[in-house]
Amino acid sequence: MEALQDKIMKEGTVLSDRVLKVDSFLNHQVDPELMQKIGKEFASRFQEANITKILTIESSGIAPAVMAGLYLGVPVVFARKRRSLTLTNHLYTSQVRSFTKNETNDISISKDFISSEDMLLIIDDFLAEGQALLGLLNIAEQAGAEVAGAGIVIEKGFQQGGRIIREQGVRVESLARISSLENGTVQFTEEVLNG
Amino acid sequence: MEALQDKIMKEGTVLSDRVLKVDSFLNHQVDPELMQKIGKEFASRFQEANITKILTIESSGIAPAVMAGLYLGVPVVFARKRRSLTLTNHLYTSQVRSFTKNETNDISISKDFISSEDMLLIIDDFLAEGQALLGLLNIAEQAGAEVAGAGIVIEKGFQQGGRIIREQGVRVESLARISSLENGTVQFTEEVLNG
Repeated sequence: MEALQDKIMKEGTVLSDRVLKVDSFLNHQVDPELMQKIGKEFASRFQEANITKILTIESSGIAPAVMAGLYLGVPVVFARKRRSLTLTNHLYTSQVRSFTKNETNDISISKDFISSEDMLLIIDDFLAEGQALLGLLNIAEQAGAEVAGAGIVIEKGFQQGGRIIREQGVRVESLARISSLENGTVQFTEEVLNG
Repeated sequence: MEALQDKIMKEGTVLSDRVLKVDSFLNHQVDPELMQKIGKEFASRFQEANITKILTIESSGIAPAVMAGLYLGVPVVFARKRRSLTLTNHLYTSQVRSFTKNETNDISISKDFISSEDMLLIIDDFLAEGQALLGLLNIAEQAGAEVAGAGIVIEKGFQQGGRIIREQGVRVESLARISSLENGTVQFTEEVLNG
């Protein structure tokens, strides 16, 4: 997605060979017009998938997910992150390890909001090691919901998450796929259909 | 705002005289079309205020704030909540006490994203005791930014936050103002101009 790649080139900061900071438009400050374009793009890619609900995770997934929900005409549910949950009653819960922060969080969704009737689109800001996405897929499985696919804003293709999740047969649509952050430079993967 | 009041009547659950649960469209599941209407309403109320940026707080403030940002044509910054911050370098930080959760969190914003040039609109999902809003106002003050006002989705008018903040001279626009949750029933305040 060109507008997104341009924004990453213009405002992204490469902090290391593995860390790209996009705090100025996605993870702390949010660019609403770009989020609208991203939402429209996800909606267009999953238009035929009979999505009934979008599943995402707080906080940076919310803006792109709500825009996608607007254009697909479906509600969005965001998983909550907590260090450890004591009240897991009436919740689907899964553990997510963050390699960047070196911590493990429980993520959870109320059983009120996903069911075996749902066809889910999972949306998240980043795909790197795939831990958050695996956690969301696990919650979908607990609910007996179907997953039409995952819409990712930025995939770091040099980390293993995308490969692992595609090997499970999950359709993953990433709007920007980065092949390398070496030498402080962002390199994008050429777009491949059904990437 | 009628669409919001209708939604509260239809889907809100009164858990006690002080707690209204709106998990089905605002705090856990999000209704994107309603968020769009809310965003347009905030944009219309603050159209003449020369807003340069919207300030909100994760997670439930993000959806209405991003929609307001879309229609005002300005970026959104969301404050992050953390139990305690060790790295406060290059951050504006303020303490926010949650009466519902009986805990105190630091909220913070990178100094990169607000400055003394900004005219801020602060958006949040709920206004009750006013602690989150006071924290955001404090951060705006640290940055030397001006605050045009606060846009609140649901104000619990029987708690003191709204009064305290209006007494400080801050314009507060609440889209739904609840005067009572007694006997399990939601009562709205009649709309008053410049509330």
